[in-house]
Amino acid sequence: MKIELNRQAQISLSKQIFQEIADRIQSGYFPGGARLPSIRKLAKELSVSPVTVIQAFTMLEKEKYITRVQGKGTFVNEMSDTQDHDMVTMLQIPDYLHRAQQLYYSQHPAKLNFSLSVVDPSLLPAQILSNHVKELIQTHPELLVQYGEIQGAFPLRQAFAKYLNREKIPITAEDILVTNGSQQGIDLVARCFLGPGDIVITEEVTYPGAIDVFRSRGATVLPVPMDQEGISINHLIRLLDTYQPQLIYTIPTYQNPTGRVMSERRRKQLLEIAEEVNCLILEDDPWSEIYFDAPPPAHIKSFDRKGHVIYLKGLSKMLAPGCRVGFLSAEKSILRRLLGTKTNADMGNPLFNQWIILPIFQQQSLDQLVQQLRDQLKYRRDLSIKLLKKHALAKINWIYPKGGFNIWITLPEHINCTELLFYAKQQGVDFFPGSACYPTNPQHNHLRLSFTNSTEKQIALGIPLLCKIIDEYIANEKQGTTNDLPGF
Amino acid sequence: MKIELNRQAQISLSKQIFQEIADRIQSGYFPGGARLPSIRKLAKELSVSPVTVIQAFTMLEKEKYITRVQGKGTFVNEMSDTQDHDMVTMLQIPDYLHRAQQLYYSQHPAKLNFSLSVVDPSLLPAQILSNHVKELIQTHPELLVQYGEIQGAFPLRQAFAKYLNREKIPITAEDILVTNGSQQGIDLVARCFLGPGDIVITEEVTYPGAIDVFRSRGATVLPVPMDQEGISINHLIRLLDTYQPQLIYTIPTYQNPTGRVMSERRRKQLLEIAEEVNCLILEDDPWSEIYFDAPPPAHIKSFDRKGHVIYLKGLSKMLAPGCRVGFLSAEKSILRRLLGTKTNADMGNPLFNQWIILPIFQQQSLDQLVQQLRDQLKYRRDLSIKLLKKHALAKINWIYPKGGFNIWITLPEHINCTELLFYAKQQGVDFFPGSACYPTNPQHNHLRLSFTNSTEKQIALGIPLLCKIIDEYIANEKQGTTNDLPGF
Repeated sequence: MKIELNRQAQISLSKQIFQEIADRIQSGYFPGGARLPSIRKLAKELSVSPVTVIQAFTMLEKEKYITRVQGKGTFVNEMSDTQDHDMVTMLQIPDYLHRAQQLYYSQHPAKLNFSLSVVDPSLLPAQILSNHVKELIQTHPELLVQYGEIQGAFPLRQAFAKYLNREKIPITAEDILVTNGSQQGIDLVARCFLGPGDIVITEEVTYPGAIDVFRSRGATVLPVPMDQEGISINHLIRLLDTYQPQLIYTIPTYQNPTGRVMSERRRKQLLEIAEEVNCLILEDDPWSEIYFDAPPPAHIKSFDRKGHVIYLKGLSKMLAPGCRVGFLSAEKSILRRLLGTKTNADMGNPLFNQWIILPIFQQQSLDQLVQQLRDQLKYRRDLSIKLLKKHALAKINWIYPKGGFNIWITLPEHINCTELLFYAKQQGVDFFPGSACYPTNPQHNHLRLSFTNSTEKQIALGIPLLCKIIDEYIANEKQGTTNDLPGF
Repeated sequence: MKIELNRQAQISLSKQIFQEIADRIQSGYFPGGARLPSIRKLAKELSVSPVTVIQAFTMLEKEKYITRVQGKGTFVNEMSDTQDHDMVTMLQIPDYLHRAQQLYYSQHPAKLNFSLSVVDPSLLPAQILSNHVKELIQTHPELLVQYGEIQGAFPLRQAFAKYLNREKIPITAEDILVTNGSQQGIDLVARCFLGPGDIVITEEVTYPGAIDVFRSRGATVLPVPMDQEGISINHLIRLLDTYQPQLIYTIPTYQNPTGRVMSERRRKQLLEIAEEVNCLILEDDPWSEIYFDAPPPAHIKSFDRKGHVIYLKGLSKMLAPGCRVGFLSAEKSILRRLLGTKTNADMGNPLFNQWIILPIFQQQSLDQLVQQLRDQLKYRRDLSIKLLKKHALAKINWIYPKGGFNIWITLPEHINCTELLFYAKQQGVDFFPGSACYPTNPQHNHLRLSFTNSTEKQIALGIPLLCKIIDEYIANEKQGTTNDLPGF
């Protein structure tokens, strides 16, 4: 276990160890039931005396993070045991590294990288954007040295509004807030509307960056299973008997990580429920434009008459990750609050970047660019699926994605993908472990394979190799998962 | 009072009115002791029935936000009465618009604008930055379509580290986190280290954007008076008898809004105290380079051996507001946490902007640029002071700023600058009301005049006009302040 101890600090070493392990448990990074290393082993690893580790473990046990079982070892308690009894503690450690699973899994990527759900930069319009930049510095060099409106540059908001109008969302520039990527959109919504003990409903499974944010507010994240039409309304209704959610977070189209599409019927039902129980829906839409067959159903926001839906759009997946521009649209009183939060968070996006992408929206060249991207990515999806069909064992399943960036793969139940990842990385292949996508009670036998960040050559090389690694791993697995922690 | 009511919402109108007023009181925007408008007047303004307003007021009274005094009116309670008894409520309304005082006072600026503490864009190196951009899109167009490292582009962090080394802060690129302006730096620190009930110590008075952020975490902000050497150590020590702060927030150099400089002796004392009580110092340094006479004392961070100081640098004040790049430096375990929070907040700054400012730091052309800026701003400071001396009444005082952007002006005690601002704006002059800079118990007879966002012509026009408006206002003031709320 990597723990950086500060030997100059006035906080004792045992307290530091306690805090680090508590953080990881709180964040779900150390799942319930996992076994901690032995006192002797940890003491050796950290170059501290065993007494120091014993002190840390004693504190952890006292705070109900762990249970020590005589002769068997030290085990992490289920989150629910520790979650509710001390809100202040939860807020004291809100945003630490180990909550940021995105960060954790994106560090030190392997060569054949199917882990990050991003697009191969060579498919994005760098040259067109460069031309805009060139024009911009000739006509408006002053944009580099000016603050912009906190809500976002007005012409860009106008262009976004027009774009949404075409998507049957009838709003104006006033109803748009420009954000620093869609991650900030999620964060702003959480900061505005969630506090300790609040309930957020998500799909089971969902985007880990959202889970991290909701948890950082002290909210309880309750996942609802999906079927082929998306989030299960029956399960949701049952949950609502017990809980009053503040927010439903959904990625209806090419859901991350499963690639599933919520049906139009389901979208309307979900909205009706939100209206009935008076909660907000955060509709996260990173890539509805990236369809490979028919276009997806209309956005939930397009059915929203009473202002229950916050629609969030990222542009990094299809246009310009180097500019980090996203936007959201919400009913006025909601938007006003989000704007206040944005002010506190960073006083607005950089102005220059907003102008870089403006012409693409103004000239509506986006359609053509996206069509090209679709074609390219469809080819990679088809290739990936073909290779999986050819090389994967019969007991491996996946969901065929009709759009988006990801293939959700299910291995036999006893396989632990976090451990598998460890071996895969050693052989130069990377993927995203599915367990990170569970708000609670992670299953360990899923993985997300993003096919959009690799060239065709890398796909042709990487997917057969990954299948081989899985084969070997399954063959070597003797008797079920050890459920040990990553890094032990 | 402007309240936007949503008549389609399922939340009752009285509940909406309650929430809006409660927000404003919680945020300090409606200060303790202020009088709310009469029920009849408010009902008329909002086009609701008086019964609706009565219901809202009853809720407000029940929750101890207001007190109704028979025959006299309805008054806002002091914040301390409502502050502690319900942490969850505080977190429920953490980041609403009315906390974002920065946003509030920057909307609809008057023509002669001394309100915003920013620099006249014509003094910033737009042309040099444009040249970098031009080069950049030829050599690295791919930066537009790539994600960057969440911690910040490595070459830029290297350049920042070198810059800090020259400032006697011995750190490396690993110890730097790039932020979306210094506002985000404050926000990240608050999110990492502050929760409800935590204590933050600031100078009295301080940067309102920081107050907003600390409050949004549910922290209690305790101001410590300043003298000519900066924050008063005697007052601070007395406070520490009762309170254990998590954080001391300070702007030691050309403090915002007062322009004061903390002496080197005081800087060392403050650090010693932080070490003793084991709390962090957030050293906010927006403009230590902008000195008009001798350079200021060394940064507190340069004396920090034990990792108690987080040093925060914004570049928008002297280089490129349109790029929104700031950075902070902290001890490794602290930086790691801040990096996790940055991941949740927005997954990193836009990459392209970071590269735009890189050459200025790499070629160390910054020194020359800053020297030019200094000369220009010194001229404006001198002009402003000269005009104040000539046109201001004898009973008006100010602090002579040796650097930075602001002049802190004190009017006779009974003058309410928020009301004065209302009249000044009508006549086309804008300033920042000092009351917004008080964490608690605002004084109303101060104003901040920023001379850096105006041309010489605007200064020559604006300052005599402002003096005249103040003259007239004082002459017309019959008997003390009414202490009514802004906008009534």
